[in-house]
Amino acid sequence: MTRYQHLATLLAQRIEQGLYQGGERLPSVRSLSAEHGVSISTVQQAYHLLEEKQLITPQPRSGYFVTPCKSKPPVPPITRPAQRPVEVTQWESVLELINSRLDEDTLQLGSGTPDTSQPTIKPLWKIISRLAQKQDPRMLNYDNIYGVPALREQVARMAIDSGCQLSPDDIVITTGCHEALSVSIRAVCQPGDIIAVESPTFHGTMQTLRGFGIKVIEIPTDSVTGISLEALELALEQWPIKAVIVVPNCNNPLGFIMPDARKRALLSMAQCFDIAIIEDDVYGELAYEYPRPLSIKSMDEDGRVLLCSSVSKVLAPGLRVGWVAPGRYLNRVLHLKYIGTGSTATQTQLAVAEFIRQGHYQPHLRKMRMHYQRNLDIFTHWVRHYFPCGICVSRPQGGFMMWIELPEAFDAMRLNRELRESHIQISVGSLFSASGKYRNCLRLNYSLAVTAQTERALAIVGAAVERAMVCCPPSASVAEVEGGASLKG
Amino acid sequence: MTRYQHLATLLAQRIEQGLYQGGERLPSVRSLSAEHGVSISTVQQAYHLLEEKQLITPQPRSGYFVTPCKSKPPVPPITRPAQRPVEVTQWESVLELINSRLDEDTLQLGSGTPDTSQPTIKPLWKIISRLAQKQDPRMLNYDNIYGVPALREQVARMAIDSGCQLSPDDIVITTGCHEALSVSIRAVCQPGDIIAVESPTFHGTMQTLRGFGIKVIEIPTDSVTGISLEALELALEQWPIKAVIVVPNCNNPLGFIMPDARKRALLSMAQCFDIAIIEDDVYGELAYEYPRPLSIKSMDEDGRVLLCSSVSKVLAPGLRVGWVAPGRYLNRVLHLKYIGTGSTATQTQLAVAEFIRQGHYQPHLRKMRMHYQRNLDIFTHWVRHYFPCGICVSRPQGGFMMWIELPEAFDAMRLNRELRESHIQISVGSLFSASGKYRNCLRLNYSLAVTAQTERALAIVGAAVERAMVCCPPSASVAEVEGGASLKG
Ligand SMILES: Cc1ncc(COP(=O)(O)O)c(C=O)c1O
Ligand SMILES: Cc1ncc(COP(=O)(O)O)c(C=O)c1O
Repeated sequence: MTRYQHLATLLAQRIEQGLYQGGERLPSVRSLSAEHGVSISTVQQAYHLLEEKQLITPQPRSGYFVTPCKSKPPVPPITRPAQRPVEVTQWESVLELINSRLDEDTLQLGSGTPDTSQPTIKPLWKIISRLAQKQDPRMLNYDNIYGVPALREQVARMAIDSGCQLSPDDIVITTGCHEALSVSIRAVCQPGDIIAVESPTFHGTMQTLRGFGIKVIEIPTDSVTGISLEALELALEQWPIKAVIVVPNCNNPLGFIMPDARKRALLSMAQCFDIAIIEDDVYGELAYEYPRPLSIKSMDEDGRVLLCSSVSKVLAPGLRVGWVAPGRYLNRVLHLKYIGTGSTATQTQLAVAEFIRQGHYQPHLRKMRMHYQRNLDIFTHWVRHYFPCGICVSRPQGGFMMWIELPEAFDAMRLNRELRESHIQISVGSLFSASGKYRNCLRLNYSLAVTAQTERALAIVGAAVERAMVCCPPSASVAEVEGGASLKG
Repeated sequence: MTRYQHLATLLAQRIEQGLYQGGERLPSVRSLSAEHGVSISTVQQAYHLLEEKQLITPQPRSGYFVTPCKSKPPVPPITRPAQRPVEVTQWESVLELINSRLDEDTLQLGSGTPDTSQPTIKPLWKIISRLAQKQDPRMLNYDNIYGVPALREQVARMAIDSGCQLSPDDIVITTGCHEALSVSIRAVCQPGDIIAVESPTFHGTMQTLRGFGIKVIEIPTDSVTGISLEALELALEQWPIKAVIVVPNCNNPLGFIMPDARKRALLSMAQCFDIAIIEDDVYGELAYEYPRPLSIKSMDEDGRVLLCSSVSKVLAPGLRVGWVAPGRYLNRVLHLKYIGTGSTATQTQLAVAEFIRQGHYQPHLRKMRMHYQRNLDIFTHWVRHYFPCGICVSRPQGGFMMWIELPEAFDAMRLNRELRESHIQISVGSLFSASGKYRNCLRLNYSLAVTAQTERALAIVGAAVERAMVCCPPSASVAEVEGGASLKG
């Protein structure tokens, strides 16, 4: 690589990383020459190369500027929620979101639905059909309260990949991860208690806390490394917190994977303050890295971690097959499971167990991981292309959710209402906060098929965001982003 | 009919109704002759006829006695639970009962499982298989939070038979009646509140109340006419009760159908004291009378009745398809449904909707009604044959549960332990009480196939009961029965 190519690569990286923002003026040729100890002409050649790549644009008599939106938008800065227990609000908007998810005329950019159309899922249809043809009487009868043994065996086996040594008897099958979370939350606390959560947090979890009259303390969370342990420790010192709920692997909505060291530190902290950890691993299998990341449960020594998951994101949510490995809370969880739903539908459990047993699960998982990773590239490209500058975008490490932060004054609710005319729906950020924060954020689901229609939808959303941003000064956002970036430093 | 035949029929009826108990001495020939104004020889001829039918036995120099156990045992008297709010106990025994229900070596006389082997259920298998073959994408995706529209339509249509005018939008599909009850209870009260229940009450409902920290006041309940309105009124005057839960049609465990006038009176009382009624209709379709009895919901004017039901007892519990028509509590119920399980499995909902739509439901229901009614006759006969005298047995008007009351000092738990050796399981009465009452009662499920094995099991239970009863004086029970009977007037 020649000197000027080397310099061009370096500059391109800086633009990519958002160090030079879209529209920003680049250093003068003279100052770069001095900074890097290269000749003026080397800098000029480097700038030429970047110009060819359309990364920068020369402006007569003013020098070079970063081509708007050719810089990769920065990641959202660490969040700063209110640091005191609050009650969860926002049910009406959640209801609106989940009610709209079956509206076939609307493009569901806001839903949490996976892609269930890939060919690797096909064997499931055959299995369901065969089970019915065989008239397996178990399908019609009440199931064991723990769940179908064959499924619990498969779940225990799958858990090995996340580092867990579980026996089938450590697992209780539930009606989706929803029920797993619901029984776990009630197993570890009472109405009026306080639970700590990441901020932002999946709205289903928020609503569950609301429904049981539990107060929530939202902990600052970094979009790359996860919940702030420093802030959590402060909160634990100050408030009688009973448990912390985290989605450490392929977080919804931020997409991060918590580094193992931080998972360990979180567990130590839980031991130290004697609180429970509810670990929601519903997207964990969809990490783009291989092998998949460890669960906190795998590090658990004294049964204080309740691992909740389901096949909803990996296979199909309509099956409503989830589970919880509740550690020392097994008895309470069994009681709560019994009074919530009695037992779980037998047929779907048998079908999932058979799908895994016949060896269809791993190929399907590989397919979905690759599929979502590819979709992420395309959606990221679209967002850079169609959205205005001055926004922050998460860099998901798994799953299929993208979090976009717009300038402080932006109103995503209004955006959503506006998009309704175009039959497009997004998830507004405020759903992910107990107190309606993140009104300036939105979550996009990139499990959607990559089609011209989807691209058009992204273009429409981007244009609507741009129109709305004209009314609110982007500078505020950029300032906050830089503050955030330096905080993370 | 001749005079002596007429008299014999009258005496046989009295024996049948338990007015003359097994082993009891019948009136002398002379006194009957005087009572009925017939000749001595007519009475003698009548007694001869009854002797031929083995209903009575002559004893030299003492007269005639009712052949032991040829009298139909009396129904259980009205219950007399403690009349103050208590906390529910008994979870361990419930867990034992539900855990044992999948033990294939054990004859499940205690379970709540219906017969799912009748040919009229066969179309369901075909429907499930077809749905999978068609690869209906709805099966894999999150359902509407209300439930599949096609199913809600069918449920609304079915509800007409119980007198209800419901629209599909009045109905929320749930994961079995368990979830319907669970969300209904939480929709109408808070932890620490008091709810009134029939006594005895289905143990699942009891455990749900326990799980949500709700206190229970058990109301005396008559095995023929249902909850005592007089006792309920007293309780409502004395305690801040939030709701009453009833199973007015084909009650579990007592089997009664509450007369319509009493249903109306209960509703008026609820209006007067402004409380909610949670009406569990899970067995209502299985009434032996036709058309089926009205629901209290059908009389509701201001949305205070939450009607809960499922296909578990009529079709198959493994499907976990239930529903609630929550009246004015719709919004709260939706929220609680969402946080409990998210949505209900789509596939089983579609299958049930299709089963009804194709017209398989009514023939199946007719079949099951007749089947259970026939089984009731046979099981009643077995109980009369194999059980000792001095017991009370319910006269179910629908469903497939029989309640047997043994002398006060009887210990059904011990009986259950003893029966374990014979691989037979019964339901002990104490599960149906908040405070462990009814230790001297047991519930039998007569949905079981009528086979020599089942008859042998009844014989074994009967013999074990007889052995145990030797240790406890039956007279106490008989006295209570008579007291009860007179109370009922
Ligand atoms: C983080 C998280 N947990 C749990 C769930 C619920 O999963 P399930 O559909 O299995 O109930 C979701 C789905 O949106 C989720 O995003
Ligand atoms: C009175 C009563 N209600 C509700 C239920 C639970 O029904 P499901 O299986 O639909 O949850 C039962 C089952 O035992 C019952 O007896």
